[in-house]
Amino acid sequence: MSHNTFGRLFRVTTWGESHGPAIGCVIDGCPPRIALTEDDIQPFLDQRRPGQSTFTTQRREPDEVRIYSGVFEGLTTGTPISLIIQNTDQRSKDYGEIAQTFRPGHADLTYHLKYGIRDYRGGGRSSARETAMRVAAGAVARRVLGPTIRVRGALVQVGPYVIDRSRWDWGEVGNNPFSCPDAAMVPVWEQYLGEIRKSGSSVGAVVEVVADGVPPGLGAPIYGKLDSDIAAALMSINAVKGVEIGDGFATAAYTGPENADAMHMDGTAIAFEANHAGGILGGISTGQPIMARFAVKPTSSMLTPVPSVNVTGEDVQVVTKGRHDPCVGIRAVPVGEAMLACVLADHKLRHRGQVG
Amino acid sequence: MSHNTFGRLFRVTTWGESHGPAIGCVIDGCPPRIALTEDDIQPFLDQRRPGQSTFTTQRREPDEVRIYSGVFEGLTTGTPISLIIQNTDQRSKDYGEIAQTFRPGHADLTYHLKYGIRDYRGGGRSSARETAMRVAAGAVARRVLGPTIRVRGALVQVGPYVIDRSRWDWGEVGNNPFSCPDAAMVPVWEQYLGEIRKSGSSVGAVVEVVADGVPPGLGAPIYGKLDSDIAAALMSINAVKGVEIGDGFATAAYTGPENADAMHMDGTAIAFEANHAGGILGGISTGQPIMARFAVKPTSSMLTPVPSVNVTGEDVQVVTKGRHDPCVGIRAVPVGEAMLACVLADHKLRHRGQVG
Amino acid sequence: MSHNTFGRLFRVTTWGESHGPAIGCVIDGCPPRIALTEDDIQPFLDQRRPGQSTFTTQRREPDEVRIYSGVFEGLTTGTPISLIIQNTDQRSKDYGEIAQTFRPGHADLTYHLKYGIRDYRGGGRSSARETAMRVAAGAVARRVLGPTIRVRGALVQVGPYVIDRSRWDWGEVGNNPFSCPDAAMVPVWEQYLGEIRKSGSSVGAVVEVVADGVPPGLGAPIYGKLDSDIAAALMSINAVKGVEIGDGFATAAYTGPENADAMHMDGTAIAFEANHAGGILGGISTGQPIMARFAVKPTSSMLTPVPSVNVTGEDVQVVTKGRHDPCVGIRAVPVGEAMLACVLADHKLRHRGQVG
Amino acid sequence: MSHNTFGRLFRVTTWGESHGPAIGCVIDGCPPRIALTEDDIQPFLDQRRPGQSTFTTQRREPDEVRIYSGVFEGLTTGTPISLIIQNTDQRSKDYGEIAQTFRPGHADLTYHLKYGIRDYRGGGRSSARETAMRVAAGAVARRVLGPTIRVRGALVQVGPYVIDRSRWDWGEVGNNPFSCPDAAMVPVWEQYLGEIRKSGSSVGAVVEVVADGVPPGLGAPIYGKLDSDIAAALMSINAVKGVEIGDGFATAAYTGPENADAMHMDGTAIAFEANHAGGILGGISTGQPIMARFAVKPTSSMLTPVPSVNVTGEDVQVVTKGRHDPCVGIRAVPVGEAMLACVLADHKLRHRGQVG
Repeated sequence: MSHNTFGRLFRVTTWGESHGPAIGCVIDGCPPRIALTEDDIQPFLDQRRPGQSTFTTQRREPDEVRIYSGVFEGLTTGTPISLIIQNTDQRSKDYGEIAQTFRPGHADLTYHLKYGIRDYRGGGRSSARETAMRVAAGAVARRVLGPTIRVRGALVQVGPYVIDRSRWDWGEVGNNPFSCPDAAMVPVWEQYLGEIRKSGSSVGAVVEVVADGVPPGLGAPIYGKLDSDIAAALMSINAVKGVEIGDGFATAAYTGPENADAMHMDGTAIAFEANHAGGILGGISTGQPIMARFAVKPTSSMLTPVPSVNVTGEDVQVVTKGRHDPCVGIRAVPVGEAMLACVLADHKLRHRGQVG
Repeated sequence: MSHNTFGRLFRVTTWGESHGPAIGCVIDGCPPRIALTEDDIQPFLDQRRPGQSTFTTQRREPDEVRIYSGVFEGLTTGTPISLIIQNTDQRSKDYGEIAQTFRPGHADLTYHLKYGIRDYRGGGRSSARETAMRVAAGAVARRVLGPTIRVRGALVQVGPYVIDRSRWDWGEVGNNPFSCPDAAMVPVWEQYLGEIRKSGSSVGAVVEVVADGVPPGLGAPIYGKLDSDIAAALMSINAVKGVEIGDGFATAAYTGPENADAMHMDGTAIAFEANHAGGILGGISTGQPIMARFAVKPTSSMLTPVPSVNVTGEDVQVVTKGRHDPCVGIRAVPVGEAMLACVLADHKLRHRGQVG
Repeated sequence: MSHNTFGRLFRVTTWGESHGPAIGCVIDGCPPRIALTEDDIQPFLDQRRPGQSTFTTQRREPDEVRIYSGVFEGLTTGTPISLIIQNTDQRSKDYGEIAQTFRPGHADLTYHLKYGIRDYRGGGRSSARETAMRVAAGAVARRVLGPTIRVRGALVQVGPYVIDRSRWDWGEVGNNPFSCPDAAMVPVWEQYLGEIRKSGSSVGAVVEVVADGVPPGLGAPIYGKLDSDIAAALMSINAVKGVEIGDGFATAAYTGPENADAMHMDGTAIAFEANHAGGILGGISTGQPIMARFAVKPTSSMLTPVPSVNVTGEDVQVVTKGRHDPCVGIRAVPVGEAMLACVLADHKLRHRGQVG
Repeated sequence: MSHNTFGRLFRVTTWGESHGPAIGCVIDGCPPRIALTEDDIQPFLDQRRPGQSTFTTQRREPDEVRIYSGVFEGLTTGTPISLIIQNTDQRSKDYGEIAQTFRPGHADLTYHLKYGIRDYRGGGRSSARETAMRVAAGAVARRVLGPTIRVRGALVQVGPYVIDRSRWDWGEVGNNPFSCPDAAMVPVWEQYLGEIRKSGSSVGAVVEVVADGVPPGLGAPIYGKLDSDIAAALMSINAVKGVEIGDGFATAAYTGPENADAMHMDGTAIAFEANHAGGILGGISTGQPIMARFAVKPTSSMLTPVPSVNVTGEDVQVVTKGRHDPCVGIRAVPVGEAMLACVLADHKLRHRGQVG
């Protein structure tokens, strides 16, 4: 992970600003002879695309991806895959006022402090629009992982409302605009987010991502641990403030016996009696499902006025008028899945290089 | 972060096994002409050293560090700094039985699955002994950061017992064997850990690390974000299962106004009215204190028997007799500080290269 | 240097195939607030552009570059700079026959052996067309280097004809289609290359690149040496088979006294009495001009038939009909300059991070 | 290649100064379950060791290597391998005068200019002593390459005397103190170097390194080309000023037909009729022997006085008295072999990760 590139053997470099002509990414290190067309990528972009319900920003982007290189006659060639999405619905006039003021909680300020310049239009480079390319790269990563490894995600908390895990049903995730696996929670979130949106406020959320079918052995101690890379990948998503693997922070209150994932032989295979570890021990996958969660803070762009300062050093009240997500956590679900898929694809390739 | 190296410009590579002849690290990229002797490093190692109270492992290692290169007449030269600690108290016989069995929750199993071989003595490479070199590197990182940046840590939760932040007093941290900033919590933990130890069990904990005096502008979007690198660094520590920046997971329940760190001008400086963000926005430091927390799971080595399997595929009960920490979180405090110091030193140097 | 990316702090990732819809690059790590428009890049592309004389391929590409990101209101922002050139003159039918046969001396064979697939149209990814993006990146690197560092190149040998260095005149380089600094050599090469071209053959060449105004101190021992990075960068150019720094291979025949670049004080500055070292000692710049040369082998695409094999394992005679350069060394001059500029820009930024 | 580390999956980090207590390296990424003891490494160190003939420095170092980590019960474990050699024969008093003066052609000056400090004793970090660790790492790389890939080297030029390739006999290389494959050349070099040594001078040389048995497909276009990495690796060796692959600079004078390595089928295998390309096309191995040559300039440390300057800015005459090699090229043979072995080991592992 460095600057605008992540991964070591499966390497993704993204570029582009919210209101530039286009955004894109270059995926380097994808193995050859994998079938890949735009149709393998587009469905995931459609899932992330804004404007699909009243709970996400009303910016309308078709987010149509095009493969510019690295694929020949429908197969990857081992050369870099360039993916580009044209930007079409840039209403830069909405952002005129943030040219001069800093939204509290937003990267406006820090880009200004670091670089002395920023493309303020729509948040420029720091816009969540960049995550579209993560999702596109994640779709390619899924092809590298193959059909036996499945990466899924769900929203498990919105504001104070946490799902009941005993009601978890992956089949429900596609039946509601929140990627919620607990059907009973959907109306609660619906009403709560409706109020948040109407009041011009925003709210945080927690996303859970899970990978099934991951073979044991992925991950590289000590500083290339699988969980360390997952933490970096998820924490790099806009607005994320916390990452957990397996039972995460809850393990702080466990005793050793409570935390131990006991094992026994099931024929010739090792069977685990629990998965508190989230499928990773010592930074290496165990063969159990990889489980991670991340916390997404509330959008800092909102109608509620907040005291702030401007570039000329005056106190101001900031109100962000543009089109925003009342809960960015919703659209973070496919992004989290994509990051997990990319990390796993990278480690799948690294593992081959590590064990010789 | 890759294999056994972390950092990009301030790069630390560690080596060594728990029961090998020595452990060491190579620090590459330390700027020249910084005064450095063993005396700058030893105090931090002494803080992490085992055997200092009944609450940590009784292995007795003097952990005496020696500088083998990179320093000339008391000053760094810009060449790699090699630090070595001889291992002295290796009782390998204690570990005979874990040669054949896998401790649930321990890297024994995954090293075996990945590599088909492991130095089982004392956990080999996966032993927390490796963290001694992180602490040593962190001491060098502190010299790179200079006197204006201060990195400190504290234990804020042991099992179910969480400190009261209103009683936080940095001055108390050195007054108890837990690095606890809340004097009133010390006797509670003392009694609780005493019981845990006597029962042959173990327990988890939460550590908080804070850096004051960090200038704004450190960090590199999008995949070299400061918080992303901190997450990777802390998650790479043995037994860590979760990482938070600022208010972390709590922000999921916040509304936008609750989460916003309002600003106003204080003379010519920007003043923040809160620090929910933990000193980082958009992956770049704001100038506020950097605040991070991490959850440490209970030690998997304990006297309580747990069902497990052995290398020949039989069901067994595992009891780990050796010398272990009932709460590894205690000794993780200086390790967490060290990792934060290293990440900051790396980003301090990177920042110079980024802004030209 | 890894896969399709080179540089560490000034990082360039290129993508695209000869006959795909476009080629491009992403430049990551360019410092902020540098004035940059397409007009800063286009002149260098025009210099490399094919079809400008009878001595280069007749493929006609306008090679018009467009900046897609990383620049706002005419200034770089510190975010990745995406440059794209549309391909327009792809006559894929010319290449039908090389789909099945391997041109001796060409990457056709090795891409096939490694990946089991290749985009054969025009050489696909291994085409010299990729070097257009190196030239574009080099133009940005020059802006990072600033006006005091000047990078220039010249052709110094074509086939058996070597220039007379005593007649070296930088002013002549732009006056002939060869970038030849020795006016007296121009007619010799003209006649020789005319014959080579008519006979359907090709020929090798040597290019020299020089950077003036490089400050002392750039370069990082031991494995980030400036000359090591220059060697990697120049050797990565298509068809390059050798790289020299300073007097290069000639130094093998020197004695120590012959090779020594004696020094004396010139006021308060160190003056060198020679530059056999090519401006680099111990991998670090001395302040003298950086001088490097590289050998370019003859184009393997030519009308002369050569015994070869095809993908189905039969003996064949290969004749390459398409449009080719009789001497690719000519168009390698701006590419060599660009690579040197990129390496220097990278080391300029790294130096800031190294000395703290 | 960065700072003091080279390689991407087979990564070698070296540390240590000529007159420090020890030198060492850490090899990260060596696959597990490879038999490895000190006896696999020592013979290569013995070949490089100084003081073995009158033609190399008289410094006497046993150069006894010890494995400190990464090997368990005689097998590699996949964890970092730490190798250390104690320094024993440091006569620092020999170097007192170079504390204040800069030897022309030596890194003394540039370390001073870059870092403002240097360990001047015996050249400190820039001493050829560092190459002992390259040789040690190369011995481990050979184990990774396995018995089918053989890496050998020879001295092919000393001063003006070039071997006759038609007399090349690998069997002769071990029969003379020069690693000369042409028995008829040995007495010529013997007499010539005797004179050079007596006169207190030094002389350059050319080394050739060859790897047989390399499978096709190693190497990664565009910037991870095998030849590009070999060039970087060889150019990083002390005193190297030029690198060639295959016929190298000679190809500049070739025509296309002269340069083409024609092919035909030999049963089901591809047979090449020549190897001008040195076993690499488009940066990827062809399956032919990998052939590279590098030029080593004359030692800059010599008894012949050369005009120079000192740290206080005065003109001086420099005479280097210590113990030096009249022709460092001789001891560069095992170093060149080691670097080639390391690059190949790295690419062998990378290839597995590239093709999935």
